Amino acid sequence: MAAYTPLTVEDAIEFARKVPDFFLPETELECEEIGDGNLNLVFRIRSSAQNKSLIIKQALPYAKVVGESWPLSLDRARIEREALIIQHKLCPDLVPAVYGGDSDLAVTIMEDLSDHVIMRRGLIEGRTYPRFAEHIGRFIATTLFFTSDLGMNQQRKKEMAASFTNPDLCKITEDLIFSDPYRDSENNDISADIQAEAEKLWTDEQLHLEVALLREKFLTHGEALIHGDLHTGSIFVTETSTKVIDPEFAYYGPIGFDLGAVIANLLLNFAAQPGWNNDRALQDKHRAWLLDTIRDVWAHFERHFERLWEEHGEDPIFRLPAYREHYLRKVLQDSIGFAGCKVIRRIVGLSHVADIDTIADDALRHQAKVTALTLGKALIKNGRQAASIEDVLTIAKHAAAAEGAIV
Amino acid sequence: MAAYTPLTVEDAIEFARKVPDFFLPETELECEEIGDGNLNLVFRIRSSAQNKSLIIKQALPYAKVVGESWPLSLDRARIEREALIIQHKLCPDLVPAVYGGDSDLAVTIMEDLSDHVIMRRGLIEGRTYPRFAEHIGRFIATTLFFTSDLGMNQQRKKEMAASFTNPDLCKITEDLIFSDPYRDSENNDISADIQAEAEKLWTDEQLHLEVALLREKFLTHGEALIHGDLHTGSIFVTETSTKVIDPEFAYYGPIGFDLGAVIANLLLNFAAQPGWNNDRALQDKHRAWLLDTIRDVWAHFERHFERLWEEHGEDPIFRLPAYREHYLRKVLQDSIGFAGCKVIRRIVGLSHVADIDTIADDALRHQAKVTALTLGKALIKNGRQAASIEDVLTIAKHAAAAEGAIV
Repeated sequence: MAAYTPLTVEDAIEFARKVPDFFLPETELECEEIGDGNLNLVFRIRSSAQNKSLIIKQALPYAKVVGESWPLSLDRARIEREALIIQHKLCPDLVPAVYGGDSDLAVTIMEDLSDHVIMRRGLIEGRTYPRFAEHIGRFIATTLFFTSDLGMNQQRKKEMAASFTNPDLCKITEDLIFSDPYRDSENNDISADIQAEAEKLWTDEQLHLEVALLREKFLTHGEALIHGDLHTGSIFVTETSTKVIDPEFAYYGPIGFDLGAVIANLLLNFAAQPGWNNDRALQDKHRAWLLDTIRDVWAHFERHFERLWEEHGEDPIFRLPAYREHYLRKVLQDSIGFAGCKVIRRIVGLSHVADIDTIADDALRHQAKVTALTLGKALIKNGRQAASIEDVLTIAKHAAAAEGAIV
Repeated sequence: MAAYTPLTVEDAIEFARKVPDFFLPETELECEEIGDGNLNLVFRIRSSAQNKSLIIKQALPYAKVVGESWPLSLDRARIEREALIIQHKLCPDLVPAVYGGDSDLAVTIMEDLSDHVIMRRGLIEGRTYPRFAEHIGRFIATTLFFTSDLGMNQQRKKEMAASFTNPDLCKITEDLIFSDPYRDSENNDISADIQAEAEKLWTDEQLHLEVALLREKFLTHGEALIHGDLHTGSIFVTETSTKVIDPEFAYYGPIGFDLGAVIANLLLNFAAQPGWNNDRALQDKHRAWLLDTIRDVWAHFERHFERLWEEHGEDPIFRLPAYREHYLRKVLQDSIGFAGCKVIRRIVGLSHVADIDTIADDALRHQAKVTALTLGKALIKNGRQAASIEDVLTIAKHAAAAEGAIV
């Protein structure tokens, strides 16, 4: 057992050479650290001669975003690696392959996806991804169905849930998503122009009730092994490929949380559009694509989930069509509520998104924040009554209409 | 580490002598095995000279009720011991003290409660327990509040939940309570006189939907460290004292499950009354006491839970009165649904109750079964709409009225 120490570039190369049947013994390897360094070191090790590369990711024992004073369990590297392995087995085309790892050093060695781009970056640049909705809908349906009581042995699931106990990372979500935005917390990051809007969140009791109910679900509903942080910064894309990475927040939680993350991040880009696109027609077109994609993500998720339920739901009492309908309606309602929480935290909480914060024009950045808050509040307040994914689209269109846009 | 072997009487005495500061070194000890032997050996070891005794309970590696072919994890002895210690710390007057144990041998050494009687036996004999409602309401409120996200550190709770992972015992509940009674299972034990009534349970889709939703809660809602088997056979009573034993089914589950078990077993005794009491006035009086007790159990639970929430709920977002009301209404609805499931399984499932099965008169025993099934179905179908504990009393009175009784 090696004691934990952060890897140097040389250490990373040494690790890479030990991966069986990957690099030739004598090949020259280049290595660079490419992570943003908030929570992890990320090394890319490459052989030009072989035109081959891999990634070594190492968890840091603290979160740098708030200084070294926020310690984080290194066990999250094991959780991330094991989640990747499970997800890759279930969706080989949508998750990077894991080549190896070391729990003591909190290291995972995996497939390099340098030919892909981070989806958030692509969306900000105005790109669209025609295969994304099918891919992410299938990813969520498949990984969650087969790790839930619906699609696996229910005793084995309990042991899985115990081994994916992830208190430190769940604590981040509990605080940053479900608590801080709704009170005057020093963790919040509120720009002066929306201070008054943010303070309204602190006293809105109808909102607080819904957030408390959503937080309770996050704390107590162990439905499936969720990714736990499925925003557009955790998704690599090309025109034809989607790869989901970074499941270090994985734990047994509510299915709607992953769907909500995807919906929220598409809506944050929706809210940001006027800041990125002077051409109104192009802006409307991109917004329409985003809303179509939200509709399609849900439709693909639902279709895949229903098919898996039909084909693999062995349990007689689970096979009842009325139960399946009830189950999926509840997942939809949860997803909408969680989406709202995830939109709001990105505007007033500790961690923002580039879609909105890097808008150059002050007025348009302000408008995007207000639109996002309007959207987020409406999603949270309407989630429990939602009957269809169309409700999300209606809420988004209303929020856009309030800023004078027509979509 | 000792290998597991069932204890002999001599082994049990040797264990008892090792308990510090209990028996004097030279005192003569008598030992008898007093368990029903289904899942455990239970030894009482007594010194007449000291007028002192204790209990040694050892888990067996199988469930005898269905032969040795149903293996059960011995880890349940650890779970039971650790649950007893937690519950005793929270409610010292309501739980036997633990003196020691041995995980390899699946042994727990604990306080002898021979001055108490099993509550089911007392109820069958027509006794009433004036302190019971306050005691059990306080037991449930206190043990569940302080092991839930409401009353303890939420990260520590996740670790607790992992350590109370209890797949084997949960499997028994999942099958015997939430599955077998609703299909033609070989585990069922259906007397010929109610075969037709039982078969109606297999095709009632409205009932199946509600049972599926309740089963889902049991499988996925890790709210608190519940007792998991809180029927009147797990409760020792006197006129003035209540002691809760046998938490070997303990795991992180829904709060309503424990309340539902208490309500169900009071209602099973309610359904059985005509079989035990020829005197109609006495019968009505006992039934009225049972219904008053159900009302009071809920009222004491609710009052204690609210008080703990007020005094110990640190979390600002949890302090919202509207959230507390919502939370308690949901616990009530869950409790009613679970109570219904627990009534039905005792009539048609593998494991029955003496309240009903030992009624001597065939017609009255049959009537009691029909009343119980009527009650159980109504509780399950109305649980999600329930607004008050009075709904349970109304359902019970209707079921009794249908048999011609007036309460």
